[in-house]
Amino acid sequence: MLTRVAYLGPKGTYAEQAAKALAELEKLDSPVFSPCKGLRSVVDNLANNLCEAAVVPIENSVEGGVTTTLDSLWRHENLFIHRALVLPIKHSLMSSGSISKISEVLSHPQAIAQCSQWLNDNIPNAVHLPTNSTAEAIRMVRGSLFRAAIGSKDASEDLNILAYPINDIEGNCTRFVLLSKNNIKVDGNKASMAFSLKSNSPGALLKALNCIANLGLNMSRIESRPSKRELGEYVFFIDLDLNNNNKKDFENITKELSPLCNQIINFGCYFGSEVD
Amino acid sequence: MLTRVAYLGPKGTYAEQAAKALAELEKLDSPVFSPCKGLRSVVDNLANNLCEAAVVPIENSVEGGVTTTLDSLWRHENLFIHRALVLPIKHSLMSSGSISKISEVLSHPQAIAQCSQWLNDNIPNAVHLPTNSTAEAIRMVRGSLFRAAIGSKDASEDLNILAYPINDIEGNCTRFVLLSKNNIKVDGNKASMAFSLKSNSPGALLKALNCIANLGLNMSRIESRPSKRELGEYVFFIDLDLNNNNKKDFENITKELSPLCNQIINFGCYFGSEVD
Repeated sequence: MLTRVAYLGPKGTYAEQAAKALAELEKLDSPVFSPCKGLRSVVDNLANNLCEAAVVPIENSVEGGVTTTLDSLWRHENLFIHRALVLPIKHSLMSSGSISKISEVLSHPQAIAQCSQWLNDNIPNAVHLPTNSTAEAIRMVRGSLFRAAIGSKDASEDLNILAYPINDIEGNCTRFVLLSKNNIKVDGNKASMAFSLKSNSPGALLKALNCIANLGLNMSRIESRPSKRELGEYVFFIDLDLNNNNKKDFENITKELSPLCNQIINFGCYFGSEVD
Repeated sequence: MLTRVAYLGPKGTYAEQAAKALAELEKLDSPVFSPCKGLRSVVDNLANNLCEAAVVPIENSVEGGVTTTLDSLWRHENLFIHRALVLPIKHSLMSSGSISKISEVLSHPQAIAQCSQWLNDNIPNAVHLPTNSTAEAIRMVRGSLFRAAIGSKDASEDLNILAYPINDIEGNCTRFVLLSKNNIKVDGNKASMAFSLKSNSPGALLKALNCIANLGLNMSRIESRPSKRELGEYVFFIDLDLNNNNKKDFENITKELSPLCNQIINFGCYFGSEVD
């Protein structure tokens, strides 16, 4: 049976690289990769059964949580994380021209942000033009002698690589996850969940975090997102470290937290790995 | 004496509105408003003494924390928050043409995101083009019959207002703060600080939060940002509610937290207000 895997297109983005690597790690049956327009539609396609799996970025080591992904996950209750993968992000500057002529640099705003110091030091007078993806930027600079794109070297095709790598921080990497609607996994070294608190009183979060700690579970990450109803009301996304000793405790977490929470989403447990 | 106030330009952005309102509330002496290119340079200008005050957005009720602001604040140690202001964000769709002809919608990516449902429902076939600011979008659509911009109605000048308000969430608002290098304030109903933990072990954050709670201080917000050194290492930004009973406790917070932290920045206490 074919497994349709949605990811943020167009082809040539880092998300496509991640989708292919995750499909292989998860040993998906005959994967067919389907590029989507916008992160929100990647998640919606899975929720609406237009595909069997979806790959989305969750967190970048420089830019932080990918807010569109987190907000999209919060809008659905039956999506589970099956695997996570940390992908190194190494940007290159590509053009049909040479670096001395470049007056415009095009890329996704996050990619431009990740190279801002390099751009400032090396081509300070170039104007920065935002695009919807790194792949779109590459497409738009083709044939121009004064425009350059920031993106993955692997997607350069006939463009010249003017400089590589150009990210300001060497260890720049993004964590991607493979989502599916299949039943929650019961094995892994990580678990993720999201919750909103019943009481918006300041001590409520601390109560929830202490409840998790009392279960013997270690929190490796917390990220707050606005509830979008009013300023000061949040949804919390947390990651937990699992091991053989606390896996059973994780099964109790929803029950223990529910008196404190309005809504809890358990994304399940899963294995995480890294690409060198 | 003139007070130079830096803000994210160009003229006509929501940031300019906020800068003017905050200068008035803070009774700044002869304010001169100076638009900057990029949020990072707004903060850097203040740090480098190119202005006496700076106004930056900290948090939006829909999009969450303004990460560029938070990251810029973490890079400087001597900047203090003097006042906060919550500004309602009401987007309008503006064009030289009429709505039936619009095939391209231009705006800052956050503004486009905040209206995505409305755009989808009303002009589903229009392409979304990102710009560096809402004001830039307004400038770029002038004279075109098929292009529209999303931005503040107050900045429309000769454009037609095709629809208003068009944000998907009615209560959309942004919290701006006025920063200065002057000595830390000792009065207010809010306090903000940021810290990185000595130990990156999972229980370390909980220890810090319990330490704050034990001082009798209520946390109204927590936001994590990547340390940018490695994935899984964070800087935490917190807001505290102050009242007459716990103001003295706030003075002890740096001392109490310092055994747990690598670095602590105290942005001081200040008053917050809202624009109706």
